[in-house]
Amino acid sequence: MKKSLIALAVLTASGISFAQSSVTMFGVVDAAYAKGTGSLTDKTQLKNSGYNSSRFGVRGTEDLGGGLKASFHLEAGVNNDDGSGSGTNTNNQSSGAIAGSTTVGSQGLTFNRRSTVSLEGGFGELRLGRDYTPQFWTETAFDPFGTNGVGTNIAFNKGGTTGVRASNSIGYWSPSFNGVKVWVQTYMGENASTDGAKAGDGNAIRLTYDAGPLSLAYATSSTKTSTAGVNNETSNIGASYDLGMIKLMAQSNKTKVDGSADIDGYVVGATAPLGKGTLRFAMSETDKAGVKSNLTAIGYVYGLSKRTDLYATYARVANKGGATAALNGATTGADQSSTGYDFGIKHSF
Amino acid sequence: MKKSLIALAVLTASGISFAQSSVTMFGVVDAAYAKGTGSLTDKTQLKNSGYNSSRFGVRGTEDLGGGLKASFHLEAGVNNDDGSGSGTNTNNQSSGAIAGSTTVGSQGLTFNRRSTVSLEGGFGELRLGRDYTPQFWTETAFDPFGTNGVGTNIAFNKGGTTGVRASNSIGYWSPSFNGVKVWVQTYMGENASTDGAKAGDGNAIRLTYDAGPLSLAYATSSTKTSTAGVNNETSNIGASYDLGMIKLMAQSNKTKVDGSADIDGYVVGATAPLGKGTLRFAMSETDKAGVKSNLTAIGYVYGLSKRTDLYATYARVANKGGATAALNGATTGADQSSTGYDFGIKHSF
Amino acid sequence: MKKSLIALAVLTASGISFAQSSVTMFGVVDAAYAKGTGSLTDKTQLKNSGYNSSRFGVRGTEDLGGGLKASFHLEAGVNNDDGSGSGTNTNNQSSGAIAGSTTVGSQGLTFNRRSTVSLEGGFGELRLGRDYTPQFWTETAFDPFGTNGVGTNIAFNKGGTTGVRASNSIGYWSPSFNGVKVWVQTYMGENASTDGAKAGDGNAIRLTYDAGPLSLAYATSSTKTSTAGVNNETSNIGASYDLGMIKLMAQSNKTKVDGSADIDGYVVGATAPLGKGTLRFAMSETDKAGVKSNLTAIGYVYGLSKRTDLYATYARVANKGGATAALNGATTGADQSSTGYDFGIKHSF
Repeated sequence: MKKSLIALAVLTASGISFAQSSVTMFGVVDAAYAKGTGSLTDKTQLKNSGYNSSRFGVRGTEDLGGGLKASFHLEAGVNNDDGSGSGTNTNNQSSGAIAGSTTVGSQGLTFNRRSTVSLEGGFGELRLGRDYTPQFWTETAFDPFGTNGVGTNIAFNKGGTTGVRASNSIGYWSPSFNGVKVWVQTYMGENASTDGAKAGDGNAIRLTYDAGPLSLAYATSSTKTSTAGVNNETSNIGASYDLGMIKLMAQSNKTKVDGSADIDGYVVGATAPLGKGTLRFAMSETDKAGVKSNLTAIGYVYGLSKRTDLYATYARVANKGGATAALNGATTGADQSSTGYDFGIKHSF
Repeated sequence: MKKSLIALAVLTASGISFAQSSVTMFGVVDAAYAKGTGSLTDKTQLKNSGYNSSRFGVRGTEDLGGGLKASFHLEAGVNNDDGSGSGTNTNNQSSGAIAGSTTVGSQGLTFNRRSTVSLEGGFGELRLGRDYTPQFWTETAFDPFGTNGVGTNIAFNKGGTTGVRASNSIGYWSPSFNGVKVWVQTYMGENASTDGAKAGDGNAIRLTYDAGPLSLAYATSSTKTSTAGVNNETSNIGASYDLGMIKLMAQSNKTKVDGSADIDGYVVGATAPLGKGTLRFAMSETDKAGVKSNLTAIGYVYGLSKRTDLYATYARVANKGGATAALNGATTGADQSSTGYDFGIKHSF
Repeated sequence: MKKSLIALAVLTASGISFAQSSVTMFGVVDAAYAKGTGSLTDKTQLKNSGYNSSRFGVRGTEDLGGGLKASFHLEAGVNNDDGSGSGTNTNNQSSGAIAGSTTVGSQGLTFNRRSTVSLEGGFGELRLGRDYTPQFWTETAFDPFGTNGVGTNIAFNKGGTTGVRASNSIGYWSPSFNGVKVWVQTYMGENASTDGAKAGDGNAIRLTYDAGPLSLAYATSSTKTSTAGVNNETSNIGASYDLGMIKLMAQSNKTKVDGSADIDGYVVGATAPLGKGTLRFAMSETDKAGVKSNLTAIGYVYGLSKRTDLYATYARVANKGGATAALNGATTGADQSSTGYDFGIKHSF
């Protein structure tokens, strides 16, 4: 993603220059006209983030010399259809402030998407704060729709509060060893020592291998829940191969929440350059003890520039075993299908 | 309004330049010592936005070539007397999160003032997101006090949640045809298809004509309420003529809320350059079935620079038919008057 | 504190230059691994602001000519361990929106740390908005740990809602008269005139003297509470002397809240350059009618650059007379001790 580099910071009040340093302001504003249709109710919306997640952020890097760098990254989710922000979670537990349940105040902007400080060097990167989790990153990287919009794979984020991001995290990214990288992360629920369950504490690891057109990834995580000894566990594996005319990708994932039945999911799909844009196609499934939903999605992204795209996506979900998954705010009866489309514009800066 | 252009964005990490593009950070910080006096209680405050609305925002435009442009605009209200933000509304209905009713948390910053993405070209501008409504714009454009501060016309914003802005809006601005422009807007309440009332859905149009010193505008809107078949309807008309030594302006507006009696209002006033500043004067009235308030306001804005002004405004409201309108946080009895003044500084960047 | 100067704002849409003006975007991202140990419970956290308060802000100054300047400062607290913002207070009273009491939404960003507009000239500075209080500034300036992190003096901020900052404030800073400066501030609770108590109204003054290595300060404040005639009163005095190899500092403060017993406190401590960093040491006490806590803290800040530091702080608090003060989220029994440490990184931009 190209972002404009703002304001090479070159002067302080005393005239000392930071020639190696920069501060970048960046963002995405993505709006879509969206329709969802189900057997019970339909819905029409102006929604955000149909192609890329809308955001506003500031980040920067300082060269400390000797190969060492310090950096920061503050990034807020923006619901640009109505101007509200997105909530965060202070302790990786349901008590940590989930937004939206009442009408007291509008959710203000928070740096919910990422708020980190890092030290980087030959040893890799050490990163502290609120950040993506390793288990998320495989799920989005091997989804032709990048877990945004109506085409988002139906197997996405079946876990708990740390399925996408974690607060109070400490992460380490290794450098590349012949294409192999390791990312380990631990995060804290910050409970008192007398708390038996330690909900919100967790660990995760992601291994990746990149070699030319081939990418492979494996991730697994374990997060403690409010019931002592019961963990929320995820694992996933993904692969992609870029043939030039078409890029193929697939992933498989498994989630166990609060000790109940496993949730199994998979995605297969492809992206292909076509004209001034990209064609996208995916099929995905989620299955929890036979309660099963299958989604098929097709879309096209037309590039007006490197920063601005028009896009259209159409998706259909089929339900079995009593499942009621529905798209774009529609509702549908057990074992009924639902369809939806997005038609939007994404502008980044 | 002049805003400083920040940081011509000229570099990306890969060195590609966006010569035609810019990102602008802008804002207004306006604070006033304000007093209100009524027959029941008085109040003294430090308040914000006595002359211009305090705000913080980021906006930018990208030249797509061929006369086409993409742009974004994210703008948050700022209560700089206490640092809090301003709430927004997610669905143009009272359920859509109105701030301030309890003491749970401070209202964080939201991009409540505007959060839009646009495509512009020879055809005009297509704009998506949260934006001003056409019905508002006439009310503020033909008020010598610009609907800010104690001098704000008493006929202002008598409608519902879409009187000033709407979320989930799609708007189209035509180019100028010999001075005539059209702005049409539709906005969505995003209710389920089985909802009979469709509260928060609405449409509005504004027609303007500008020719040298003369400006004319007409706007009308209809917004569905939570009672099926009952609409909130507004219409207004305004005119101004700039004689050089003095600019005269007037408007008339009518609002029907939830099927009750019409609210009629008007404003007549003028602004005139005087010394290093501008003198402002206005009389306005609102009348709902004989419950009637009349406001007279006079003020002076002294320009310290293009970006910084000192201002003073004095206003008096008279009530009839049981009306209790009062100024600057004072309260007054039925048919009693109230007076108020602002003395402040506005700084923009 | 060095901040990067961003983007000399040189162009408006019409090409007029503001050669004397600047807008600066600045911030601090500070994260620490922190442990607290007490007789009842321990806690481990990733916390923010262990060395400097995490923040994001924008500020700027405009030269008005003739020695006059206008400036603004908008600064938000950032909890970068989880991305949330910090609440503010609208009326300097408990009803003015204290964050954190329930789980409704995440606290969004507010400009809680400061949101002011100023006029400056030979006469000094007049500042309007939400700002630090004079009584706070002495408490932090003569604390070797700057009232941040586990080493924060235990005598800090024993007053009410205006102990650190006040909303609706009007402040005046004198120029220096041979090293002597005066800062007076008044702030408003914005109650109705019929309210007998006028809670949140207050006045404060701070006198400072600086001469080479010597700094002296005295501050006092009085803030009305919700009980008519009962005031929250503070006074403090501080001194520091920089011997080059070591800088010594001490302060004494007294707080009377809601008419109950006085709270007396003191701090003695020192900072000393050592290698590429600074050693810090402090002892502090708070005593309310014999309920007494004593804190000892030692720490080291290692400078990776002017903008980036690593730091470690260790502190121990001893309790007497039934006191239960504990560190870093631990809890401890009456008259039991508590220990804690921070190990972190601070990066500013």
